[in-house]
Amino acid sequence: MQVYEAPLRDMKFVLHELHADKTLGDDGFGNLEALEEFTPDLVDAVLEEAAKVAQEVLLPLNRSGDIEGCTLENGVVRTPKGFKEAYDLFREGGWCALASAPEWGGQGLPEQVNKMTEEMICSANLSFSLYPGLTHGGTTAIEGYASEELKQFYLPKMVSGQWSGTMCLTEPHCGTDLGMLRTKAVPQGADEFGGSYKISGAKIFISAGEQDLTENIVHLVLARLPDAPRGVKGISLFLVPKYLPKEDGTPGEANGVSVAAIEHKMGLKASATCQLNFDESVGWLVGTPNKGMEAMFTMMNTERVSVGVQGLGVGEAAYQSAVWYAKDRLQGRSLSGVKNPDGPADPIIVHPDVRRMLMTMRAYNEGCRAISGWVSRALDAEKFSTDPDVKQRASDFVALMTPVVKALFTDLGFESANLAVQCYGGHGYIAESGVEQYVRDARIAMIYEGTNGIQALDLVGRKLPAHMGRYLRSFFHPVSQFIEAHKEDETFGKMIEGLEKAFGALQLSTATIAEKGMKDPEEAAAAATEYTRLVGLVAMGYCFARAALIARARLAEGAEDAAFYKAKITTARFYFDRILPQATAAFLAIKSGKASMMELEDEAF
Amino acid sequence: MQVYEAPLRDMKFVLHELHADKTLGDDGFGNLEALEEFTPDLVDAVLEEAAKVAQEVLLPLNRSGDIEGCTLENGVVRTPKGFKEAYDLFREGGWCALASAPEWGGQGLPEQVNKMTEEMICSANLSFSLYPGLTHGGTTAIEGYASEELKQFYLPKMVSGQWSGTMCLTEPHCGTDLGMLRTKAVPQGADEFGGSYKISGAKIFISAGEQDLTENIVHLVLARLPDAPRGVKGISLFLVPKYLPKEDGTPGEANGVSVAAIEHKMGLKASATCQLNFDESVGWLVGTPNKGMEAMFTMMNTERVSVGVQGLGVGEAAYQSAVWYAKDRLQGRSLSGVKNPDGPADPIIVHPDVRRMLMTMRAYNEGCRAISGWVSRALDAEKFSTDPDVKQRASDFVALMTPVVKALFTDLGFESANLAVQCYGGHGYIAESGVEQYVRDARIAMIYEGTNGIQALDLVGRKLPAHMGRYLRSFFHPVSQFIEAHKEDETFGKMIEGLEKAFGALQLSTATIAEKGMKDPEEAAAAATEYTRLVGLVAMGYCFARAALIARARLAEGAEDAAFYKAKITTARFYFDRILPQATAAFLAIKSGKASMMELEDEAF
Repeated sequence: MQVYEAPLRDMKFVLHELHADKTLGDDGFGNLEALEEFTPDLVDAVLEEAAKVAQEVLLPLNRSGDIEGCTLENGVVRTPKGFKEAYDLFREGGWCALASAPEWGGQGLPEQVNKMTEEMICSANLSFSLYPGLTHGGTTAIEGYASEELKQFYLPKMVSGQWSGTMCLTEPHCGTDLGMLRTKAVPQGADEFGGSYKISGAKIFISAGEQDLTENIVHLVLARLPDAPRGVKGISLFLVPKYLPKEDGTPGEANGVSVAAIEHKMGLKASATCQLNFDESVGWLVGTPNKGMEAMFTMMNTERVSVGVQGLGVGEAAYQSAVWYAKDRLQGRSLSGVKNPDGPADPIIVHPDVRRMLMTMRAYNEGCRAISGWVSRALDAEKFSTDPDVKQRASDFVALMTPVVKALFTDLGFESANLAVQCYGGHGYIAESGVEQYVRDARIAMIYEGTNGIQALDLVGRKLPAHMGRYLRSFFHPVSQFIEAHKEDETFGKMIEGLEKAFGALQLSTATIAEKGMKDPEEAAAAATEYTRLVGLVAMGYCFARAALIARARLAEGAEDAAFYKAKITTARFYFDRILPQATAAFLAIKSGKASMMELEDEAF
Repeated sequence: MQVYEAPLRDMKFVLHELHADKTLGDDGFGNLEALEEFTPDLVDAVLEEAAKVAQEVLLPLNRSGDIEGCTLENGVVRTPKGFKEAYDLFREGGWCALASAPEWGGQGLPEQVNKMTEEMICSANLSFSLYPGLTHGGTTAIEGYASEELKQFYLPKMVSGQWSGTMCLTEPHCGTDLGMLRTKAVPQGADEFGGSYKISGAKIFISAGEQDLTENIVHLVLARLPDAPRGVKGISLFLVPKYLPKEDGTPGEANGVSVAAIEHKMGLKASATCQLNFDESVGWLVGTPNKGMEAMFTMMNTERVSVGVQGLGVGEAAYQSAVWYAKDRLQGRSLSGVKNPDGPADPIIVHPDVRRMLMTMRAYNEGCRAISGWVSRALDAEKFSTDPDVKQRASDFVALMTPVVKALFTDLGFESANLAVQCYGGHGYIAESGVEQYVRDARIAMIYEGTNGIQALDLVGRKLPAHMGRYLRSFFHPVSQFIEAHKEDETFGKMIEGLEKAFGALQLSTATIAEKGMKDPEEAAAAATEYTRLVGLVAMGYCFARAALIARARLAEGAEDAAFYKAKITTARFYFDRILPQATAAFLAIKSGKASMMELEDEAF
């Protein structure tokens, strides 16, 4: 059964305690003057309201949406029953506008709060999350690159959720390699937005490309100008509305954008994934001609962290649904003596192998949430810090961690979904249980917004070498300081020794990749996936070690919710016992180099 | 796209070379007099015919079967279009009878050949494989336990495939814990089959429980006699035909077995998974009263190896479909220089991270196939060897490896299916690509016939301690002999050192589990899953090291198909470089013990 209660206690721990703890050395990303009004009380109130929306409005539509899916009839896409009403509630409640700038009608909440809210929405209903989610990616690009006129005209409507947004990048023959794209943009002469273009081409995999939730849709489309250079250096970004707005701002005539098909997908069935045809559709340039990739990456990078959070969201829902079943299902007896003497059997949560699965999911979720909180604090500091050093360090950290968050969280979210199915046994394979949907839904997050393999290449190929390795220092520095300070801790010394070992493996791997990769880029690429995992494992380990130390201090102070802090310490121990050892395997794989991976002739496959 | 060509070359290598190589010390399971007629030529001819059936008859129905699924209308189950014709062809070709004893009309082929054939069928169409597959499980139980009269009457029809079989174990409230089952059997007095019973109860998850392929279905049903002791000691096995046969052996009147529903599942959609109601259905006892679990386990153990092979089968199909795409899809340029100068981009197989995925799948499949061949040789030797020592050792090895094969192959098959989707990127998430079906289909194999967690418990709880650890020796002995003999090999010494290290970790883990588990069974259970994987990793490593040595010898002899042997060496190297390192992580996890896994209070979850 799909059950979900927002993990507010853990979210608050991550937001208010984990990274801000002065005794352990805080991350320096807090205390931003611009965010002073967002007091802990206000933040908590927002999270509690978000939890209600997720639990009461979105969760009940998750399974029905999966069963019903979206339909396309006579060019019209219909979302599943209840989605329109839920979207209206969501929009009217101001949830579309949460993360956007007050200038455009947004609420300007800190990213720390937004990312936690996103997690809840994704836990409750991943398909639904894409409708407002893509709009937010679109507004980011418009805000950063479009002309003042376009901003003034489009942003308020998009920020409020009255109109939605899409990202139209992929074409049938090109996804990762956008240099090959063929969609054309032909200039039409000047107008009040600085000149329009006629856009023609076919785009695929467009999430929310068409739907029945908003009165207009604003497509952000990558296309080529007639004189554009070949490859990625000849791509421009255009804003193409579904309906051309009238002067009064209401949607006018149709703009030549049609839906060729909606995809039949493994999951995410309530999200309409469209094939769109642009037939001389009128559009406006966003940013500089031939610099579309830059604007696209702004949008994409924001989205990548969010897609990571999607993985976490599904992982948390899967965990909770598995816990519910493990307490409910009676089967077998505990090896340490009967636990439910009045029942015909014990609940399966007594069995070590079921515990192994539950604890694994729990550790993944708490570990990812801790990183999510850390990265969102950096996102806020990057934007709002008045200290140029902090700003720089925050920006470095975000750049470094974006591919890690995307790849790690989505891999682990998928693994959690699978573990949930395993906890349910045969019942998990039946659609009625609701948990196999988590597997199907979570699977896409490892692919879209750049496959996890692409994330890994971004990390080793772009982020590691940038500025002579400066990005990495924003991560290595706090970790090594922490290890130095606490490796002789009397309770957790062994845990921190484990972290030190994994961190040592990461440092060595970094040196190996830098050295070998300099001579042969294939060597770096061959190590990329395992290296990305290794960074993620060390980051989670660091967060868990901090969490354990903080929990111990709170317990010593006689904190009220001792159960929470005790569980945090146990989960941290489990992480170090059972999950961090994967770091050694990753290190050995990295060390082995590219030879056996690359030597087989293509024909031998 | 779903593509599949049976990997005959590798199958022949496993059957004729890998385990039979005299210079490396053969496994002692070969040269069985009873199987002398099955010359390598005959074996190869059977495999080649099986490949044709898989590729030409079954593969074309795999995706259409997934799309159409099974339907239930007015109590009648219909399999997808083409399944009936395919089943008739399959049956008429003698494929149902391949593995059965000639006494009952079977062809009595060695298990070595059967398992390879099963792999092909599962690669081509996993859903289809269940229809003949379950029948085979049923005939095994009947042959081993039923009265002579039941055998004479039912086996010929089941072996030929004219009638099919099912295994009716699970009930809504009990799967793993069959001790709780409620289906009743009431004696009706003597008849020509030794006395009939009336069986009443509800069973769920019955594969091929009802279908339109055969004229009758023989259900093997676990039920309780009126005076039965509680728990698993009070369970008996009954044979319950769908239609009561007339004296002439044709199906007569309906026997009170009805289909309450067919399940809506994540995958395996062309296999009808039924909820069956038995309403005073007439049945006959198979074996001794209250000893049904024993007969059931005979059937189950045979099936467990076959379910492992299902995982391998899907993994191979997924691999081939991924290779096809990786050669076809043009995207990006090779980091080591353009490989396809005339095209707009290089095929993605040039990219290291795509190679990593393909090589991983390849290593999994070849590694599992090597183990499959080894275990099937043992199955043959257990049955046919005239040397009591060999017979005993073979039987020990089969007992030990059955849970490993089931858990390892299905875990890795699922992982391969997921890697295939990842190779396809966004296209893999679309149903049309055919690869997401592999993920959905493969998922069930980790669950049914005992979840992989149950396999692990079987290994550490039953198989390790049995006869003072004797089973384990059938595996440890050849591995340690091999390591001793070859650790200083000039080409492969480092590889064999890797094996030695992993084997050392396995030995240490075994000792830890034996010692801790003696005092506290939860300690053994907490280590079970990682231990099972560790055994599997060492077994694959041993097979790959042997394969590499054999391949080197063949190359030195100037073997004709040098490409095959070269690729074998590369794949072996990749296994040691990239996959065997997981053994260290498993070892560390085992060593950590149960504390952090078990200490959280139930309420804290």
